[in-house]
Amino acid sequence: MLDHQASWDRLFHALSDPHRRAMVQRLTHGPASVSELAKPLPMSLAAVVQHLQVLQAAGLVRSEKVGRVRTCQLDPHGLRAAEDWLKDQRTTWERQLDRLGDLLAEEQ
Amino acid sequence: MLDHQASWDRLFHALSDPHRRAMVQRLTHGPASVSELAKPLPMSLAAVVQHLQVLQAAGLVRSEKVGRVRTCQLDPHGLRAAEDWLKDQRTTWERQLDRLGDLLAEEQ
Repeated sequence: MLDHQASWDRLFHALSDPHRRAMVQRLTHGPASVSELAKPLPMSLAAVVQHLQVLQAAGLVRSEKVGRVRTCQLDPHGLRAAEDWLKDQRTTWERQLDRLGDLLAEEQ
Repeated sequence: MLDHQASWDRLFHALSDPHRRAMVQRLTHGPASVSELAKPLPMSLAAVVQHLQVLQAAGLVRSEKVGRVRTCQLDPHGLRAAEDWLKDQRTTWERQLDRLGDLLAEEQ
């Protein structure tokens, strides 16, 4: 789990952009260089690098530079943290519904 | 699943604010009036209403006005859609890792 509200802010903010989500989706199929990531996107390489920085700060992507090529890969921790937060909310809500159902059944 | 990229933008953007996440967390425990939702939050009622509008547009919250009281409740579709998107990415990535593992095992 993430420690601070700011980490959750960064994580969900990173996912709120269609190009950043496209980058995450691309990286689920395996690592890619920055130029490979940029290829299908309608923007400059500089803009891609900025989006990558947002994804890295959010814990969704890691990158490493070997020689002149920077290779990016998915960081599963960010995805899992976001999924866990949502699952926690859903299960709390479902438990609450079940309790209400039990109360109604008892009253009848 | 949501139809348009803009729907995903709205959904993850709605979750990127700590006060909106606090409202979602409160509503997992059951419906609440707008003033009940506002009580623990360090902001004006008008600001709370604005946040609620963002949550409603994202499909995370529904509200209904009966008499003079507007009651809000969690809309589970938004939470589930976001959770499903994240799960899809994670399972694609895990399948890719498994394939890599198989390839390495075959080579040895």
